[in-house]
Amino acid sequence: MRVHAYAAPAAGQPLAPTTIERRDVGPDDVLIAIEYAGICHSDIHTVNGDWGPQPFPVVPGHEIVGTVTEVGADVTRHRVGDRVGVGCMVNSCGECVNCRRGDEQYCVAGMVGTYAATDRDGTTTQGGYSTHVVVDADFVLSIPEGLDPAAAAPLLCAGITTYAPLRRWNAGPGTRVAVVGLGGLGHLAVRIAHALGAEVTVLSQSLKKQEDGLRLGADHYHATSDPDTFTALAGSFDLILNTVSASIDVNAHLGLLAVDGTLVNVGAPPEPLAVQAMSLIGGRRSLAGSMIGGIALTQEMLDFCAEHGIGSEIEVIAADQVNEAYERVLASDVRYRFVIDTSTLG
Amino acid sequence: MRVHAYAAPAAGQPLAPTTIERRDVGPDDVLIAIEYAGICHSDIHTVNGDWGPQPFPVVPGHEIVGTVTEVGADVTRHRVGDRVGVGCMVNSCGECVNCRRGDEQYCVAGMVGTYAATDRDGTTTQGGYSTHVVVDADFVLSIPEGLDPAAAAPLLCAGITTYAPLRRWNAGPGTRVAVVGLGGLGHLAVRIAHALGAEVTVLSQSLKKQEDGLRLGADHYHATSDPDTFTALAGSFDLILNTVSASIDVNAHLGLLAVDGTLVNVGAPPEPLAVQAMSLIGGRRSLAGSMIGGIALTQEMLDFCAEHGIGSEIEVIAADQVNEAYERVLASDVRYRFVIDTSTLG
Repeated sequence: MRVHAYAAPAAGQPLAPTTIERRDVGPDDVLIAIEYAGICHSDIHTVNGDWGPQPFPVVPGHEIVGTVTEVGADVTRHRVGDRVGVGCMVNSCGECVNCRRGDEQYCVAGMVGTYAATDRDGTTTQGGYSTHVVVDADFVLSIPEGLDPAAAAPLLCAGITTYAPLRRWNAGPGTRVAVVGLGGLGHLAVRIAHALGAEVTVLSQSLKKQEDGLRLGADHYHATSDPDTFTALAGSFDLILNTVSASIDVNAHLGLLAVDGTLVNVGAPPEPLAVQAMSLIGGRRSLAGSMIGGIALTQEMLDFCAEHGIGSEIEVIAADQVNEAYERVLASDVRYRFVIDTSTLG
Repeated sequence: MRVHAYAAPAAGQPLAPTTIERRDVGPDDVLIAIEYAGICHSDIHTVNGDWGPQPFPVVPGHEIVGTVTEVGADVTRHRVGDRVGVGCMVNSCGECVNCRRGDEQYCVAGMVGTYAATDRDGTTTQGGYSTHVVVDADFVLSIPEGLDPAAAAPLLCAGITTYAPLRRWNAGPGTRVAVVGLGGLGHLAVRIAHALGAEVTVLSQSLKKQEDGLRLGADHYHATSDPDTFTALAGSFDLILNTVSASIDVNAHLGLLAVDGTLVNVGAPPEPLAVQAMSLIGGRRSLAGSMIGGIALTQEMLDFCAEHGIGSEIEVIAADQVNEAYERVLASDVRYRFVIDTSTLG
């Protein structure tokens, strides 16, 4: 099956229309007619070669929402006509300790990324900037009724990336959560943490997006460019979720944690974090990291978001605007996620 | 009350016999006739000026065991004749959120260290290399019968320093715990983790102390100087307790953690730890720190050690051997803790 797509032909090259081959629908597969694909910063890192050589041409996109148009003979989980989603992974070994526990993203054999990865059958995966995709049914999520499909697309990566650590570190009533950065990840973190019942503070470089932050559910909003922030808020958070990939002053941020607090990174700055051991020892604090989330947890997140009316704030674009959108993402000029309307492809 | 003691007269000077004043026994105080005082590496750091200027002369010692010889009018917790202990702190505000929760070591107003600290009455505290000490009853621990008093002394610092993180991060049956370094802290960590029911691995620079490690309760023993250790044991621990203050390759050690594992530092190397965010993100791992433990937990630890027959392996010395003992601690030439017999003082 030959389908329309947008691909990066080589590292750093603009994306351009193309066609790609999708595999036949196997007994465990689902064929999805894609409606929307979110643009994640990782898409840009990958096609720009920031994360090493890639199997070009690369069709990015791992925030996929669409409708099932065909299912394999053994698929019971999804039916034709269902609205479904695909996130950052499309396969894993299914047998290792992490897969068995539902942490497929930490598959010991390596999870199979939704694009630019080698699938278990040896083929190279291609992502959601495309009209169709064939995915193993176990890696296809159900999009609950009530979620706007375009606004749901970013939940598949940005949503689970923030939901997973908020759940893992018990954000909820009585906990004080700070979200560092109000971007694609951060704005969903605020909505989700608020819906979980936590007291939510945004820590942003400036107060530029303060109004947005409060509207999204934050109780407080502080600028990290103001050194007073770090004295006024010392020791006052149980959990800090750092959604910023740029380097932050990690020891200053650790100082904002109460005893037993945790600072979780979901983005990876290129430079190592220079952590003073006393920043941790002095409050029995933890510095942690978290990467997306397992399939069962992703479904839980989607159901939670539907129940609480949480979607991403999005700007829907046509496929031929994707290169311009990349520029705007790099300039932090989006509130808060671009989503490609894939009906504009081909 | 004027009592015999051993004090450092100035930074880097050898300790020498002296006498110091102990305060009158107030209504909440306990007067303790000290029997044993352990030598902790911190004592050496403090008197050498490694941790900044100190109020010399300094009488070190925060691993104190003795017998109650007088109690204040309002003391109900301890009686004359009781065998008791004093650890790293002798006071705190008692009112802040951390004190109220039993984390007096994280008192917001600052815990009062057992020596070289300013007590709440403005006087300078002096430690356990002395014949007597007067301590607020709330900071005096009961030494259970069955614990050898000399071997119990190091439990007051080295014991609680390792017990607290082992408990906080749930070492027990079914968990895989690695202890980095087999010294004063490490040898107690091995005994305690083993008694808690964990599977215990020692990670030491060499295999020199392997026999000791296995005798103390370790199930496995590996040399970190052998690079194969880091490939063979990748992803295999739930908890790593780093008892070494020298810098370690933190990313290599994080790679030894399973998903959701935690590497806890109880010693602080002078240099910051250069942590790659991906070392954390790649396994939802945590890097944490822990400092001694609260009074209630310290009592729990002493009771646990008595129940499981855990003491420190010690070399008892006379007071006039303390300078030589310091040299040997710095040369790692002690298995595993020096304890001063304070009857040899003056």
